Amino acid sequence: MRKLQVIFHPSHRKGETSSGGTILKVAQELGIGIESVCGGQKACGKCKIKLEKGFFERYGFTSHPEHLSPFTKKEEKFISEAEKEDGYRLGCAAQIIGDVLIFVPEVSLTGIQMIRKGSMEREIDIKPAVSLCYLELAPPTHHYPLGDLDRIKNTLFEKYDFASLDIYYYTLLKIPDTLRKGNWNVTVAIWMRKQIIDIKPGRVEEAYGLAIDIGTTTVAGYLCNLYTGKIIASESIMNPQIIFGEDVMSRITYTMTHSEDGLEKMHNSIIKGLNQLIRQITEKAGLTFEDILELTIVGNTAMHHCLLKITPQYLGVSPFPPAIQQSLNMKARDLGLAVHPSANVYILPIEGGFVGADNVGVIIAEKPYNEEMKVLMIDIGTNGELVMGSHEKLISCSCATGPAFEGAHIKFGMRAAFGAIERVKIYPKTYDVKFEVIGKEDCNSESSCPKAKGICGSGIIDAIAELYRTGIIDKRGRFRDYIQTPRLKRVNGELEFVIAWENETSIGREITITQQDVRNVQLAKGALYAGAKLMMKKLGIEKLDKVVLAGAFGSFINVENAMILGMFPDCDLAKVYAVGNAAGDGARMALVNINKRAEAEQIGRQVKYIELSIEDDFQDEFVNAMLIPHARDPFPHLKSIVSDEILD
Amino acid sequence: MRKLQVIFHPSHRKGETSSGGTILKVAQELGIGIESVCGGQKACGKCKIKLEKGFFERYGFTSHPEHLSPFTKKEEKFISEAEKEDGYRLGCAAQIIGDVLIFVPEVSLTGIQMIRKGSMEREIDIKPAVSLCYLELAPPTHHYPLGDLDRIKNTLFEKYDFASLDIYYYTLLKIPDTLRKGNWNVTVAIWMRKQIIDIKPGRVEEAYGLAIDIGTTTVAGYLCNLYTGKIIASESIMNPQIIFGEDVMSRITYTMTHSEDGLEKMHNSIIKGLNQLIRQITEKAGLTFEDILELTIVGNTAMHHCLLKITPQYLGVSPFPPAIQQSLNMKARDLGLAVHPSANVYILPIEGGFVGADNVGVIIAEKPYNEEMKVLMIDIGTNGELVMGSHEKLISCSCATGPAFEGAHIKFGMRAAFGAIERVKIYPKTYDVKFEVIGKEDCNSESSCPKAKGICGSGIIDAIAELYRTGIIDKRGRFRDYIQTPRLKRVNGELEFVIAWENETSIGREITITQQDVRNVQLAKGALYAGAKLMMKKLGIEKLDKVVLAGAFGSFINVENAMILGMFPDCDLAKVYAVGNAAGDGARMALVNINKRAEAEQIGRQVKYIELSIEDDFQDEFVNAMLIPHARDPFPHLKSIVSDEILD
Repeated sequence: MRKLQVIFHPSHRKGETSSGGTILKVAQELGIGIESVCGGQKACGKCKIKLEKGFFERYGFTSHPEHLSPFTKKEEKFISEAEKEDGYRLGCAAQIIGDVLIFVPEVSLTGIQMIRKGSMEREIDIKPAVSLCYLELAPPTHHYPLGDLDRIKNTLFEKYDFASLDIYYYTLLKIPDTLRKGNWNVTVAIWMRKQIIDIKPGRVEEAYGLAIDIGTTTVAGYLCNLYTGKIIASESIMNPQIIFGEDVMSRITYTMTHSEDGLEKMHNSIIKGLNQLIRQITEKAGLTFEDILELTIVGNTAMHHCLLKITPQYLGVSPFPPAIQQSLNMKARDLGLAVHPSANVYILPIEGGFVGADNVGVIIAEKPYNEEMKVLMIDIGTNGELVMGSHEKLISCSCATGPAFEGAHIKFGMRAAFGAIERVKIYPKTYDVKFEVIGKEDCNSESSCPKAKGICGSGIIDAIAELYRTGIIDKRGRFRDYIQTPRLKRVNGELEFVIAWENETSIGREITITQQDVRNVQLAKGALYAGAKLMMKKLGIEKLDKVVLAGAFGSFINVENAMILGMFPDCDLAKVYAVGNAAGDGARMALVNINKRAEAEQIGRQVKYIELSIEDDFQDEFVNAMLIPHARDPFPHLKSIVSDEILD
Repeated sequence: MRKLQVIFHPSHRKGETSSGGTILKVAQELGIGIESVCGGQKACGKCKIKLEKGFFERYGFTSHPEHLSPFTKKEEKFISEAEKEDGYRLGCAAQIIGDVLIFVPEVSLTGIQMIRKGSMEREIDIKPAVSLCYLELAPPTHHYPLGDLDRIKNTLFEKYDFASLDIYYYTLLKIPDTLRKGNWNVTVAIWMRKQIIDIKPGRVEEAYGLAIDIGTTTVAGYLCNLYTGKIIASESIMNPQIIFGEDVMSRITYTMTHSEDGLEKMHNSIIKGLNQLIRQITEKAGLTFEDILELTIVGNTAMHHCLLKITPQYLGVSPFPPAIQQSLNMKARDLGLAVHPSANVYILPIEGGFVGADNVGVIIAEKPYNEEMKVLMIDIGTNGELVMGSHEKLISCSCATGPAFEGAHIKFGMRAAFGAIERVKIYPKTYDVKFEVIGKEDCNSESSCPKAKGICGSGIIDAIAELYRTGIIDKRGRFRDYIQTPRLKRVNGELEFVIAWENETSIGREITITQQDVRNVQLAKGALYAGAKLMMKKLGIEKLDKVVLAGAFGSFINVENAMILGMFPDCDLAKVYAVGNAAGDGARMALVNINKRAEAEQIGRQVKYIELSIEDDFQDEFVNAMLIPHARDPFPHLKSIVSDEILD
């Protein structure tokens, strides 16, 4: 009997099962941490998951609601009608009877969710694009029979000094009835002192907006009160475009190989995803879609273009010009977003083909343009985006790091999910290894603890830095084959170092770091380092005063090890900061403060993008940067933590 | 066997027929002049008509394509696939086999088409809203990898001094491909120095726009070259809303009695009609809908509101405030108009609930605000709209004339269509009558000449003025029963005057003017006159220097007789002008000259609307104005043409 395929997103883990197993059971077998307080008794509702409908080309199967056992009475208690429509089920109730693709929402994931796009507490000045004005109007008379809108505009001018306002068509339609419903007392919402975008009867004092960060993998939304800046609710979903390709280049390729409808499909899929996010987040906040009067969006250039249904094909061809760099204000309804019909969406500007609006978000959140210090900002995703400079000048570049830091192209690499080794310590001399596995801290007993399944980005960085610090590999990244330890062994002629013994893993074999793994990480970190070095040269900077690590990845790595490895040039470790999802923070700040939009606009125009591949010294820098930490550079701040013998 | 119903629009004539007769035959029986050069041989294609599909509540039947005999081979020669889709047939080929509503397009009508909204030759200054800019751009390089739009904007700034332009979303989508298709040489269309609305490869030097006049009965379109102001094509259609009610009040009532979907139906119907007009007019001009980059629209306040899908219900309730008075710029696509997706539509401002954007169109075409002379402008439709003043001040009012001038509420009244008596002359003493019938001038032989079927507005005015001038009726409008003529006879106790003897008509009976007809005309003209008198009082004007008659009706009446009747106060007859469809002219002028929009905006704000019904002396004025020409006013300019005996 054919095994059924089960794919879990956003972790992308693939499993096989026989008919009849529950989703929860298969997830547990695969080491995917789905919440289950009641232990699968259908009593706690924590293991809510979502069946993704459709044919998935990359997996070669169709995922269909009927590939799960029928919806049960017990699930009704936890799953609303709308959720049911969308494919939600309880993982412990739904039995797999056909191939399925299952999305595990953030809320149902256990343990550290490194894909989560968190948002930092930041001080945000408030100056929203939308103003609410309460008006008490005189009803029309024969002597003053002025038109309804004209009456509103006169009062707005007299009372609030608003001149030359226009009105968006869909708001105009509401005016006559709303005026009479409110007995001529109404609250009017005005966008950017330019346009009347809403009218409600009576006095209204709260207005809401939504900041969105469209990542290649994850889309995060922050529903904010526009007047306090407070986050009312946040929510993230998988970027549904993932079925068209996992990384940016494969999605661009998809639109080119499917020139008929590829772009349209990708566009429709992200719009549908955003509308799902909007529905979830407004429900969570007890609001409706019409309460969202303003949106801001960040994302990398390809996500940005696909969102707008602009062909991304020229982003893939030298010299990679984007279709538009400046920011864009447009009506959300023209994009098909289900918010207030007159809501504006502000899409942050992009810096270039490879440095997108997400990077602009990071910059306005971190404000290096206000710094005296020379700052390097690193945002590592599939590409590494670097920004360097100070209040004098800022430049940016994009480094082709490849996906090694995300666990790809690494023998036992995996995403930062349940069961991944995320921390590694190697003891000198004994070469003993201590490691930590994601999910371990939440388990109650030894037996329920996750065993290692693979090794994720932060674990890989740790492992290679420790291999180097303990002298197991040399500057060139080569294993010193004379070192005596049973952990260093030759497999098929190649040296590998054992991080976890077979009995410490759940995959029935040892988890190792291979010579090839080390090479791949050297390539990735070399690209980052060479980029940073070239930028320093361009700017005439000798020494960095501050390094900022943006993005979820940056928040979880051991910065000391990252520097030992040579991911970035020498810097006082006390001045290396992880700032989490700064792109999302930038979107939120632009949402509630229009001055931040002006700053973004500046940035989009002023940050000079450096195309590394055409720089003369790039190849040379890159070769030198492949070494650990670097062929020629001094690392004074490493002296205290790494022995001279190793460093020299 | 049940007779089949046939309704002809725009004349609204109703007929009955047995199954099998052709449309042409039934039309001829009813006296509707449909062109037929070949005499029904299906050889000339002139008798093209259109079957209107749908259930028509006011007629109580469904008109369906299958209610006509099947489409014949011979018709293919004259009727395109698209026209066939729309219900076009040849009148001589289509046999009636069920109830049908037939629209006779202007082009197929014979004789004087008084419903035609003609357009005058006027001098128009050119200053269109849309500018075309040809750009030769440098392709992107690694050293100048600027975004496509940003590249265009930089060049527009450098070459044409355009600063802070934005772009409409749908145009943005075309940019990357168009730039490459044009090999970086493109023509960009810019709206109001504000927004990029189109991009085309290579050099483009012509741009087109469409001015639309939405009348209660007829919708006229003028397709113009925006750079020369020339009319490229003009076209008119029946206002399809006519099935919801013939006049403004009945349409407002329809939206109120059908609160669920009445407004939506009316809105959809006019949008569909406009799209039909757009298709016809662009085909005629050899253009496509995407060539229309700008539109202007005029119409009375109710038409204006229904076009916008704004409830007109408050227009029907004192103090009749409109929802919006100011002009409106909006995207045509937000209205559902099938033109260029980024085209703007400028909807002229309205003066008040009863004086609409059509009147503003008349004013900007005639420019009384530039006149030293005291001008009275009269636009007679179902309501009479009056504007009075000079460069110092302008006021407007609306007079409830009722539909008498359109032939309604008149015993033998009819619209100005084939067979209508349009001119009447009565000889003093002998009381002989000479009259002219619409369609007569085009007939070749006596037998083919149309006989009278009724009497239309201009004929009614002539008839009553002549009855008064010859002393058959007195100042009070009463028939002098002592006058000896066989034409004055008593029918059911009431006096009537015979205009056409039975043998001169095609309806098998005499056509007369009754005492009640005279009363109804007195009411209508009294309303106009009283309005004008009150306006003169308000403005402190003793004497009018000029009278302007706008609209098709004004073009066809005998102004001398109109003054004898007392439709307007005394004025030198050499200073009374008929200006045709000045509302449409105003729309055209606003289309090609944005200064005219600024003038319209001024007008909309500055023309003071006078609500007659609340004026203290209105009732008194009205009673005096019922008399012919007026109870107390002197008419020095009539002295030469009407005997003193009659006048005093």
